[in-house]
Amino acid sequence: MTKKAVVLYSGGLDSTTCLAVARSEGFQPYALSFRYGQRHCVEIEKAVRNAPLAGAAEHRIVDLDLRAIGGSALTSDLAVPKNHLGDDAIPVTYVPARNTIFLAVALGWAEVLGTFDIFIGVNAVDYSGYPDCRPQFIAAFEKMADLATRAGVEGKGRYRIHTPLIDLSKGEIVRLAAGLGVDFTLTHSCYDPDPQGRACGACDSCLLRLKGFREAGIKDPLPYVKGRIRLDD
Amino acid sequence: MTKKAVVLYSGGLDSTTCLAVARSEGFQPYALSFRYGQRHCVEIEKAVRNAPLAGAAEHRIVDLDLRAIGGSALTSDLAVPKNHLGDDAIPVTYVPARNTIFLAVALGWAEVLGTFDIFIGVNAVDYSGYPDCRPQFIAAFEKMADLATRAGVEGKGRYRIHTPLIDLSKGEIVRLAAGLGVDFTLTHSCYDPDPQGRACGACDSCLLRLKGFREAGIKDPLPYVKGRIRLDD
Repeated sequence: MTKKAVVLYSGGLDSTTCLAVARSEGFQPYALSFRYGQRHCVEIEKAVRNAPLAGAAEHRIVDLDLRAIGGSALTSDLAVPKNHLGDDAIPVTYVPARNTIFLAVALGWAEVLGTFDIFIGVNAVDYSGYPDCRPQFIAAFEKMADLATRAGVEGKGRYRIHTPLIDLSKGEIVRLAAGLGVDFTLTHSCYDPDPQGRACGACDSCLLRLKGFREAGIKDPLPYVKGRIRLDD
Repeated sequence: MTKKAVVLYSGGLDSTTCLAVARSEGFQPYALSFRYGQRHCVEIEKAVRNAPLAGAAEHRIVDLDLRAIGGSALTSDLAVPKNHLGDDAIPVTYVPARNTIFLAVALGWAEVLGTFDIFIGVNAVDYSGYPDCRPQFIAAFEKMADLATRAGVEGKGRYRIHTPLIDLSKGEIVRLAAGLGVDFTLTHSCYDPDPQGRACGACDSCLLRLKGFREAGIKDPLPYVKGRIRLDD
């Protein structure tokens, strides 16, 4: 019998690759997205359209309005910074406790589905410096999850937060995705797309994505605002 | 300077008492409620009205639709069971991973507010058998929180999840509340109130509340569907 797994799925490059990894490991992916007040709503529209094409057995979208607590450029009126990647500080696009919150809801759905497997496409190599992308955070979450649930009371807690991308460079992620047959036109990364949904090419997320394609020697098929980004950019 | 603390606040007896404890310990309470698809919406209306009266410095309500993941009588079409308290099984009113989810959002708000203190009115004595009310869960959450946030990256994580009610019987909670001057008419407990907002007197939450008042020898001033419950019931 195929085992179910909850896959946190934003429709971006990393989570789409993560979903493909889950499938390649024999899991039936139950994709979970959040409408959390992010400014890039195009992300959700694309996720809804793309989840079945990417192989999700089911796709749920949870409404969770994080604007109520504020504190991030992604959920408030702060400006999304451009071209500052590499700065050591945690950027304003960091949403306080976002992965903790997303994993907590994923844990709830996993419990409903009767599975102990959750996939999240966090990455601790080419990342934006977000604290909740680090392996020590994931390990602590797993321990907590075992105690948080029915299984914990029965002494059967054995949740596993799968992070297949955590040690990969962005270039390695792009190559892994290509090897698994991921259709890159089904992935969306930009924090600040234009009204036509074209990527800005300058936010952290675009810069990381473009770096990955460049490293992998693969051409990104997505349209960008200032024309198609070339590999030799 | 008064320190801020995020207080998970449903408007119920326990969370209102918890807010009063936070104040008595010198904290400025920032009350956090959730509209999570619970059937008892009267709970939120009362919380909005009562939070300032109970002494909250601020009150935020986060919309988080847990009906998307289902799995509980409180968020789906399952019937709320009556008069079955004491059964060893975890009841159908258990919302999978609810406290994990609520604490995760509280953690996000705490980070925005710049505080490390979070209060939650969980109770491991007279409780409904929910796994996420146990001290070992709270301890694991604290450890995870230290790693999940900016402070964690800087090695300064020292989150504290305060659980002032965790070792108290329901009778002791009622006495504590009375001692702190909690106005019991500002607290609402019933999972299944009638359209006038009167408590059913039979759900887990009502049974626990009534047990508490009985043990404390204090009369519950709230109206119940079948007339006012008497102390000698």
